[in-house]
Amino acid sequence: MPHDIRIVTEADLRSAVGLDIETVDVVEQAFTALAGGEVVMPPILSMDLPAANGEVDVKTAYIPGFKGFAIKVSPGFFDNPKLGLPSLNGLMILFSAKTGLVQALFLDNGYLTDIRTAAAGAVAARHLAPHTVETAGVIGTGVQARLQMQAAHLVRPFKRLLVWGRDAAKAQTCAEDMAALLGIEAQAVSDPSELVAQSQLVVTTTPARDPVLKAEWLHPGLHITAMGSDQEGKNEIDPKALMQADLYVADRVSQTEKLGELRSAQEAGLWDRGIPAELGQVITGQAPGRRSDDDITIADLTGTGAQDTAIASHVYQMLKDSPAGTVITA
Amino acid sequence: MPHDIRIVTEADLRSAVGLDIETVDVVEQAFTALAGGEVVMPPILSMDLPAANGEVDVKTAYIPGFKGFAIKVSPGFFDNPKLGLPSLNGLMILFSAKTGLVQALFLDNGYLTDIRTAAAGAVAARHLAPHTVETAGVIGTGVQARLQMQAAHLVRPFKRLLVWGRDAAKAQTCAEDMAALLGIEAQAVSDPSELVAQSQLVVTTTPARDPVLKAEWLHPGLHITAMGSDQEGKNEIDPKALMQADLYVADRVSQTEKLGELRSAQEAGLWDRGIPAELGQVITGQAPGRRSDDDITIADLTGTGAQDTAIASHVYQMLKDSPAGTVITA
Repeated sequence: MPHDIRIVTEADLRSAVGLDIETVDVVEQAFTALAGGEVVMPPILSMDLPAANGEVDVKTAYIPGFKGFAIKVSPGFFDNPKLGLPSLNGLMILFSAKTGLVQALFLDNGYLTDIRTAAAGAVAARHLAPHTVETAGVIGTGVQARLQMQAAHLVRPFKRLLVWGRDAAKAQTCAEDMAALLGIEAQAVSDPSELVAQSQLVVTTTPARDPVLKAEWLHPGLHITAMGSDQEGKNEIDPKALMQADLYVADRVSQTEKLGELRSAQEAGLWDRGIPAELGQVITGQAPGRRSDDDITIADLTGTGAQDTAIASHVYQMLKDSPAGTVITA
Repeated sequence: MPHDIRIVTEADLRSAVGLDIETVDVVEQAFTALAGGEVVMPPILSMDLPAANGEVDVKTAYIPGFKGFAIKVSPGFFDNPKLGLPSLNGLMILFSAKTGLVQALFLDNGYLTDIRTAAAGAVAARHLAPHTVETAGVIGTGVQARLQMQAAHLVRPFKRLLVWGRDAAKAQTCAEDMAALLGIEAQAVSDPSELVAQSQLVVTTTPARDPVLKAEWLHPGLHITAMGSDQEGKNEIDPKALMQADLYVADRVSQTEKLGELRSAQEAGLWDRGIPAELGQVITGQAPGRRSDDDITIADLTGTGAQDTAIASHVYQMLKDSPAGTVITA
């Protein structure tokens, strides 16, 4: 029986969907649901295409109470820049959780992933950062560095931003752009240890395979969100830092022990704290969070299918009665 | 950078794509490639949605030499008939194997799966059935029963067809339809043992959880293709039959030992023949096939992502210069 499918392109999604507190709240719902134990979230399907220096990941999750579930396909083809194409692409498909019928195709080329990833950073900051953040720091200068700071500013309206990246010119541009966007003071720094020393909230947004943030830089009253590692072999945070922190929180332990910072700490033989808390458990009070403004906390975000289901459902609701996109009967 | 994506509905796919010898050849290429060892085919991603009596499977495979790879999403929501909707739906997405960009969306509601599944049956019959098949038998009366017989007739042009199903009226209708479609004699039978006794080629197409084909019905010169089992718990063929046969061939051992007839034989503690051959190995001569017209052979088909990549690539090539579907720039 033919039914309507809404197909929305990246350009239309960029016009319609931004990074706001509503998006943060929707992504927080996904984390809350994960703590409830009734979410069904299979392991990520991952396929390498060595001949093309490519890979593709598929994520999904069913969240009770959501009317739909998303399946997200994220190809990464790392020779694309030589062809003038971005490395990352992909789409989200939203299905009815009642009938399995396709409801929408979001041909977002990764845009909704960018948004939901930044929103998750804001959820971590909301529940783990000190109440007052005067200065925030970001390590990395790309799309996520900017979106993470934009999202964090929604929940911790810091007055000053420090930016560090391997390329000083890019750090400078990033700082200038963020100063204009957020109406705050922002500056590039040449020493990442200085950035950490002056910040109460630091987000790492790099694809590093050797730590960019050292354990000896940690100081009381610091929250770190590491969101760059999403594959075996990536590692942004000195494994010793996870042990020095008062609290380590995973987005999903089954992922961070394979793809995140927890993996590095476990492989280094340092981790001896058993099964760590998940962000959703902190949100719901099932696990303790920050106990004082002096605690050092670390959030390890690898990205979950539950976030994809949350953002896709949100966008579908937003656009349902709008003329955005093309409706195909299939 | 925006690029063109072809979106084709089920109706357009049904007009353009049929079950012919070219399709069988394309699917055979997928099996040949699987035997080459360079195919990348991750385990099936499978998610249950117990609240909706639903499930969703995601299959994919990269086949060297193919310009694209497919990701197929197959939801099955078994309360849908109460809503007047089919249980099975879904779509295939074709990506460039060079850049990862989406090339086409086939909103086929399972039609291309039906075709590639039947084509795989024909590949099995081509390489395993006796040279001459006078009578074919099909157990089951649904869409796959019909398509499997249509496909088998392309490679073994049998003169007579026997049909058995739990519902005698449906078996009668199926026989009448197939007689008209293939221009052959076809009749419904009331006893499946009689069907097997008179056939040289039997295809089982049921969702049975208890065997519908008994070991004592096997006879020299018989080939059986079991294509119904694709989940833990399904079982069409008496596990003893796998041991009585001269040859058992899997589409993919890593799947049939979990989802196919091999699983039941292993769980019953009967299987003692080590790692069985795969269909691709028989096609390429890496493993022996039928040795004489008196052999008894069994093919166990669970459905592979490689078949999906093959059919989606084939359809994309076929439709590339046609006006079929809608082209969206995204």
